[in-house]
Amino acid sequence: MIPNNVAIIGLGLVGGSIGLATRAMLPQVATTGWDANPDVRRRAAERGLVANVCETAEEAVRDADLVILCVPVGAMGEAAAAIAAAVPSGAIVSDVGSSKRSVGDAIAKALPGATVIPAHPVAGTEKSGPDAGFAELFRHRWCIVTPPADAPAEAVAAVSDFWEGLGAKIEIMDPAHHDVVLAVTSHIPHLIAYTIVGTASDLEDVTRGEVIKYSAGGFRDFTRIAASDPTMWRDVFLTNRDAVLEVLGRFTEDLTALQRAIRNGDGDTLFELFERTRAIRRSIIEEGQDDARPDFGRSDH
Amino acid sequence: MIPNNVAIIGLGLVGGSIGLATRAMLPQVATTGWDANPDVRRRAAERGLVANVCETAEEAVRDADLVILCVPVGAMGEAAAAIAAAVPSGAIVSDVGSSKRSVGDAIAKALPGATVIPAHPVAGTEKSGPDAGFAELFRHRWCIVTPPADAPAEAVAAVSDFWEGLGAKIEIMDPAHHDVVLAVTSHIPHLIAYTIVGTASDLEDVTRGEVIKYSAGGFRDFTRIAASDPTMWRDVFLTNRDAVLEVLGRFTEDLTALQRAIRNGDGDTLFELFERTRAIRRSIIEEGQDDARPDFGRSDH
Repeated sequence: MIPNNVAIIGLGLVGGSIGLATRAMLPQVATTGWDANPDVRRRAAERGLVANVCETAEEAVRDADLVILCVPVGAMGEAAAAIAAAVPSGAIVSDVGSSKRSVGDAIAKALPGATVIPAHPVAGTEKSGPDAGFAELFRHRWCIVTPPADAPAEAVAAVSDFWEGLGAKIEIMDPAHHDVVLAVTSHIPHLIAYTIVGTASDLEDVTRGEVIKYSAGGFRDFTRIAASDPTMWRDVFLTNRDAVLEVLGRFTEDLTALQRAIRNGDGDTLFELFERTRAIRRSIIEEGQDDARPDFGRSDH
Repeated sequence: MIPNNVAIIGLGLVGGSIGLATRAMLPQVATTGWDANPDVRRRAAERGLVANVCETAEEAVRDADLVILCVPVGAMGEAAAAIAAAVPSGAIVSDVGSSKRSVGDAIAKALPGATVIPAHPVAGTEKSGPDAGFAELFRHRWCIVTPPADAPAEAVAAVSDFWEGLGAKIEIMDPAHHDVVLAVTSHIPHLIAYTIVGTASDLEDVTRGEVIKYSAGGFRDFTRIAASDPTMWRDVFLTNRDAVLEVLGRFTEDLTALQRAIRNGDGDTLFELFERTRAIRRSIIEEGQDDARPDFGRSDH
């Protein structure tokens, strides 16, 4: 059953997109919202990200049957504490954080007795802030719901139904497993992208102008990821430390093996890997998780 | 002065795109072409990648005043040797290879006395083969020309004018410097992308299906790069070994520092880097080398 009143705390890219998507695809649902930053609240009201932008977090959640915390994962506990006095006793509290074990713990600790159903829509762009959101962000994307073991089935269904209403596909997953899967598919790719962009801008032999001019050779794809919100990503790495370090260790081993292959002129090892990785790309296109148009239409302009 | 007769050896993504772009934007230029693979020749003729698909390399270059070798960088010397007997004495021989020192040497060695003007259009997609090319590939992209010190000025101008005619912007560069710049902006990004895609597919705790399903969190951008032509990229790493290993060493140092910051919970170091890398992205958009549309319109479908 889809909730009647949804409150969104944090009106950046994801929170704003949830609001816009709800208003467009679930018009029967009342939407309220709040953001800690008054400039964001004003801009959210101008864009109509939610029907009612409130002046306090308490006011936003007062009538909610579903509250969604859309703040950086390091701020989830604080955001939950700020609504503790006002959130209705029957309401479900959810979130959109990219690491789930620590976030679930933080929210549950701040809201003892509340029904907490953490979730993570696997969708985003490199933009952030109240101007970045759009209603289509979650369409055909996966939303991973990570309920605690004792979660009421109807609460899990309510969160799932809501996200399906926004166009997402649902997967129920153990929080610890989520954190490993996302370390691989999202956190390590971001860490690597941030690193190479930093490395490139610190070289003495190559100017920053050159890096920018010739970025179409591959580098630009990394800069897109490395333009993602710094606060959000700092918090992801700090809250999903164990899984990130584990996967990073594997990556470093594999990179060292390739380094040795290059040093030794071992073309067969390189070719074998490069051939194998193509198959994964094909599967992603087939699964509808990416677009096969040449160059993403970048050559259109 | 733009050449009158252009011969393209190798009719994959880049060779095919040069042919299509020439026919569309420089219709006065006669185009011939050849590919070692008979299936590619047949498909090239069907698509009209060049006006005249020849049955031998010698036939393709017989009347050319500009020959462009569009084969993997490891095959350049062989491709040059195959046309040595037929290439007209006044013709310019150029190429499109992604590493320039070794390729320039290989072509010059196979064609003693010929006017060799190596070049590298910094453009591409993850597709390869005779169906991958399109006329707009080089528009607004840089083409780096790396003439030897004693190259005739009019030959450098002819190659430059030709590429400008296809919509590219020209930069003249020393071959050794080219190889370092491209190691940073293209070769290392590809190596890292291939590595992380391989790492992800080898994990025991996370299934390949999960990696594919949740790839929208960042991983999919890497798979696009890691779907690039395996032969081409094997050769790039083997022929630009020194610059690749040098930049890879820097990258590994920087990654180790971030690993330590995550282990120690040092959020300031992470935030400082993540904030800094955003500025580079902005410059790339401003320079017209990428597209700022949210999610590259991936959410359209």
